Amino acid sequence: MSPALDLQERPTIRLRPKAQKRLLNGYPWVFSNEIEITAKTKLLEPGVVVRIEANDGQPLGTAIYNRQPLISARLLSTSAKAIIDEDFFVAILKRALTLRDTLFNVPYYRLIHAEADGLPGTIIDRYGDTLVLQVNTAGIENLLPTLLAALDKVLDPKTVVLRNDTPSRLLEGLECYDKVVKGELNGPIKVIEHDATFFAELQEGQKTGWFFDQRDNRKLAASFAKDADVLDCYSFAGGFTVQSALAGAKSVMTVDRSQTALDLAAMAAAENGVADKCTFVKAEVFNYLAKLANEGVTFDLVIVDPPAFVKSKKDLQQGSKGYRKLARLAAKLVKPGGYLVAASCSHHMDIDNFADQMRKGLLDATRTSRLLFTRGAGPDHPVHPFLPESEYLKLQLYTLD
Amino acid sequence: MSPALDLQERPTIRLRPKAQKRLLNGYPWVFSNEIEITAKTKLLEPGVVVRIEANDGQPLGTAIYNRQPLISARLLSTSAKAIIDEDFFVAILKRALTLRDTLFNVPYYRLIHAEADGLPGTIIDRYGDTLVLQVNTAGIENLLPTLLAALDKVLDPKTVVLRNDTPSRLLEGLECYDKVVKGELNGPIKVIEHDATFFAELQEGQKTGWFFDQRDNRKLAASFAKDADVLDCYSFAGGFTVQSALAGAKSVMTVDRSQTALDLAAMAAAENGVADKCTFVKAEVFNYLAKLANEGVTFDLVIVDPPAFVKSKKDLQQGSKGYRKLARLAAKLVKPGGYLVAASCSHHMDIDNFADQMRKGLLDATRTSRLLFTRGAGPDHPVHPFLPESEYLKLQLYTLD
Repeated sequence: MSPALDLQERPTIRLRPKAQKRLLNGYPWVFSNEIEITAKTKLLEPGVVVRIEANDGQPLGTAIYNRQPLISARLLSTSAKAIIDEDFFVAILKRALTLRDTLFNVPYYRLIHAEADGLPGTIIDRYGDTLVLQVNTAGIENLLPTLLAALDKVLDPKTVVLRNDTPSRLLEGLECYDKVVKGELNGPIKVIEHDATFFAELQEGQKTGWFFDQRDNRKLAASFAKDADVLDCYSFAGGFTVQSALAGAKSVMTVDRSQTALDLAAMAAAENGVADKCTFVKAEVFNYLAKLANEGVTFDLVIVDPPAFVKSKKDLQQGSKGYRKLARLAAKLVKPGGYLVAASCSHHMDIDNFADQMRKGLLDATRTSRLLFTRGAGPDHPVHPFLPESEYLKLQLYTLD
Repeated sequence: MSPALDLQERPTIRLRPKAQKRLLNGYPWVFSNEIEITAKTKLLEPGVVVRIEANDGQPLGTAIYNRQPLISARLLSTSAKAIIDEDFFVAILKRALTLRDTLFNVPYYRLIHAEADGLPGTIIDRYGDTLVLQVNTAGIENLLPTLLAALDKVLDPKTVVLRNDTPSRLLEGLECYDKVVKGELNGPIKVIEHDATFFAELQEGQKTGWFFDQRDNRKLAASFAKDADVLDCYSFAGGFTVQSALAGAKSVMTVDRSQTALDLAAMAAAENGVADKCTFVKAEVFNYLAKLANEGVTFDLVIVDPPAFVKSKKDLQQGSKGYRKLARLAAKLVKPGGYLVAASCSHHMDIDNFADQMRKGLLDATRTSRLLFTRGAGPDHPVHPFLPESEYLKLQLYTLD
């Protein structure tokens, strides 16, 4: 199942009439209903490298093709003659690396953010000399040996982990697995972020082990933490907690349902010398917020950064209610003049809807407010200009009367 | 024409049936078609303080009323018995000041951002001990003596300038005028922003003299300026220019059509010791960008922060084309691997439309790109949660291949 690296042997996918327009306009995907299905295309192996052409034969680019998912072809190049070899990946990696070198002083970041960085459906997170990959397309899965060789050439990592365990792989007909393919992993690994040190579980943690996307937002929230009593809900490994404590919080209460997450957060608090300020609470956040409200406890800064409530389109209504309820419960705990930071990483929840749920939740809590900041993911999660919907992370910071 | 400060004498505005719903949901405005017009309401002086009640008599709040504009009543308080006196304004100013004290180390900021800070249609910008007010409603215009007294009490400013020269005053039946009502102004005044010093013309400059809203965005753009050749278009008084130069730019070319603006920018460059890096060009930006492209000049960082192209809804199509063309012209001058920063302060241009024009312009310039940041105005321009449309400023930062 080696990829069609030879131009001569590269199969061709022909689009239906007029379907070329979006590709010509910079869009990187072709949907299954835009493709002329022939006996030949039906036989193509999932993830094969193909030549894309318009209905009239005009060459449009080189793509990976998989007839199974709705997004059937994903562009690798707008040249139909692009050679997809180690050099191809080296060029992509070098471009991504140059950008991160400009953005960051330490090598802890998302190196490749899928389409925006030129690798369809593929994530590469960098933790110093350890890399974690997540491949969500059959096309890149087929090309993995070449990609790994390119990574060796550009970064020579000590350890490489494949976190190929996402549901989207099933749509591509891929199996789920986790594997250390180079070097070895022994327990949690250090993550350096804004001069603080954290710990991430690369093989068992959520996502690839650390949420790099909130890097700048943690710093932003922490800028309101001086002398504050802080409540950090859905703390995960303690990003907001430790940054708030380091920024001069009087106290931080850190809530998560996962003991593993709390243990990582406690390790980070100790490592950064702020353990004495922090209290770690294992609890379901909704219940615990209600309990705190009943007890009349309030905070100067409340942070709620939950996992996605809206995992698919059908969850939208129910999930939206979840954000509204969370906003209400959290707002009730904010002292007058205090701050509320709320985030949503639900891909299907757009910023307008999120802001609307926040608004309603604040109203439910009978709190008037001002919105000070709306932010997205950090710049190591760039957005492909033609896939604006890939801006999944939203964070808002309000001050409440 | 003194405001009805006496509760007994306060006139009542009754809403039409069901029109109370939005006010009860936190919305701060009542539109003219939501009000029961009676012989009595017709006689009310523009800008009078009124009691608002639902059609069934339920009290909804205290507002300023002017039957002339579409937005006829603007809420001052959700209490129908609120006393609108000096203490009322003192409380609003103190709350706003407390927030700015948390946000900033130096007293140069927007102190009052209209509805979001509780003063309908009213702007107060602070330049140290000088304040610039812009009043856009007849209601606050009537209450000006009380507001000015409150400002004296809270901030005791040396100088107070009224920049009451906006077209929106005409809708309220107000005249336009500029006036120094306290102290005196002698030439440009200093503005301190992120450790740099600028100069603003408070009586003759654009807006109130300085665009505080781009404070953080200037710093963001400048973080990409190290060793860069920078082009700053629509430079105004040199905000992006000086921050880029201070951040280590190799050179900055600063373009504006206004000699006054360029003179202020040059003064700022000299004051901050970066004049040797800067070249100031008096030119129409569109023409000049085309000229530079013809000459084959390129830059590592191009910034375009134009005045609003879309001043009213009817300009939307034409203005959108303007942003697209500007994106194309600017993108052509960005070196491979360089950065493009583009902003729009058009109220009627929403972020989706702006991003769409950017996308099209980049495509017109045949440049592929990644979007790294989308930002709004700084936090001294808070957003009223129920007026999300007041988020007028949009800035995007792209890296181009």
